[in-house]
Amino acid sequence: MSELRFEISMSLDGFVAGTDQSEQEPLGRGGEQLHQWVVRLAAWRERHGLEGGETDASTEAVERSHENVGAVLMGRNMFGGSGPWEEHPWDGWWGDDPPFHMPVFVVTHHPRPPLVMRGDTTFTFVTDGIESALAQARAVAGGKDVALGGGASVAQQYLKAGLIDELRIHLVPILLGDGARLFDNLGDVRPTLECTQVVAAPGVTHLTYRVR
Amino acid sequence: MSELRFEISMSLDGFVAGTDQSEQEPLGRGGEQLHQWVVRLAAWRERHGLEGGETDASTEAVERSHENVGAVLMGRNMFGGSGPWEEHPWDGWWGDDPPFHMPVFVVTHHPRPPLVMRGDTTFTFVTDGIESALAQARAVAGGKDVALGGGASVAQQYLKAGLIDELRIHLVPILLGDGARLFDNLGDVRPTLECTQVVAAPGVTHLTYRVR
Repeated sequence: MSELRFEISMSLDGFVAGTDQSEQEPLGRGGEQLHQWVVRLAAWRERHGLEGGETDASTEAVERSHENVGAVLMGRNMFGGSGPWEEHPWDGWWGDDPPFHMPVFVVTHHPRPPLVMRGDTTFTFVTDGIESALAQARAVAGGKDVALGGGASVAQQYLKAGLIDELRIHLVPILLGDGARLFDNLGDVRPTLECTQVVAAPGVTHLTYRVR
Repeated sequence: MSELRFEISMSLDGFVAGTDQSEQEPLGRGGEQLHQWVVRLAAWRERHGLEGGETDASTEAVERSHENVGAVLMGRNMFGGSGPWEEHPWDGWWGDDPPFHMPVFVVTHHPRPPLVMRGDTTFTFVTDGIESALAQARAVAGGKDVALGGGASVAQQYLKAGLIDELRIHLVPILLGDGARLFDNLGDVRPTLECTQVVAAPGVTHLTYRVR
């Protein structure tokens, strides 16, 4: 059964990005601290075409996040930019060889033809809602899971719709104080969570939950 | 060196109590779920004069929370009630034999004579601020640590003042959606936290941080 898996780095006070997100600071003020645990890992750097890096207790978490994944979902905010696409539109944060190497579906209000990048990454822009995006991702995932990349807004929509099967929080011991909260805008939806794995690692605790 | 230790149960979305806290629901709506992991433990029940209970991976966490503690600090909200004390004032949630068995200092705006209970528990009401309450607690702790019990408001004051040495979060996989957030009202204070222990247990993850 193809599952929808969502994972994200969150500060101890519940933020997945700081304030004032911009092209210069896509994770907002202080938000880069959320990813310090991962960007120094060889397992992450290799996927992003970078040399060197370390191995620690988080390495397995990084490897696991790519296992059995056949398609990626993300929101427009994670892809970057806002509003209607310009004549020479933004092509994402990741250069011409993005680290996905599989079909990526971007939930947006603004139509745009698919964008074919190097290394088997194709961005398809879905304008008819989160359920359609998930169905399209599943259709090409070949029975594998679909990984929801974020950001907070689209994750909240999928959580609220009860469509997420597995939630992984990379809990980072910092306090951002303000920004985008992961668990906002859920209305009265209270999913039942069962913690299935806890991994302590330098600068982060990896928490895996089944969502019911 | 006598340290100030603070521990509290927190929902995955950052709340330490639900909305509408009252005498009937001291932890607010849904807040009792925050303590389900502990109230069924023999180690907790024994301290509260109750029989039976279970033993699991949280037992050590409960035992550790009482080790080397010489005095307790809490806010008025945790002691109960609000505003000036009445003629026959509230004597706390815990009956005539409270589970502390040591001096307890209650930070409040409203003076009141000390309250001597059974079993070596004495409540002293401190009206000249959090630093005075900590100094008074340390003075009687005999070199042992001081345990800050909560609630959120007084914990925030101690965090903001940089007086907490160890923070333990009992992270419960529920979403309360609203209520009292632990990491609110900290202004620009951003303590540096280092995770020193992670314990996975049924229904809770125990996270210990050094605060610098």
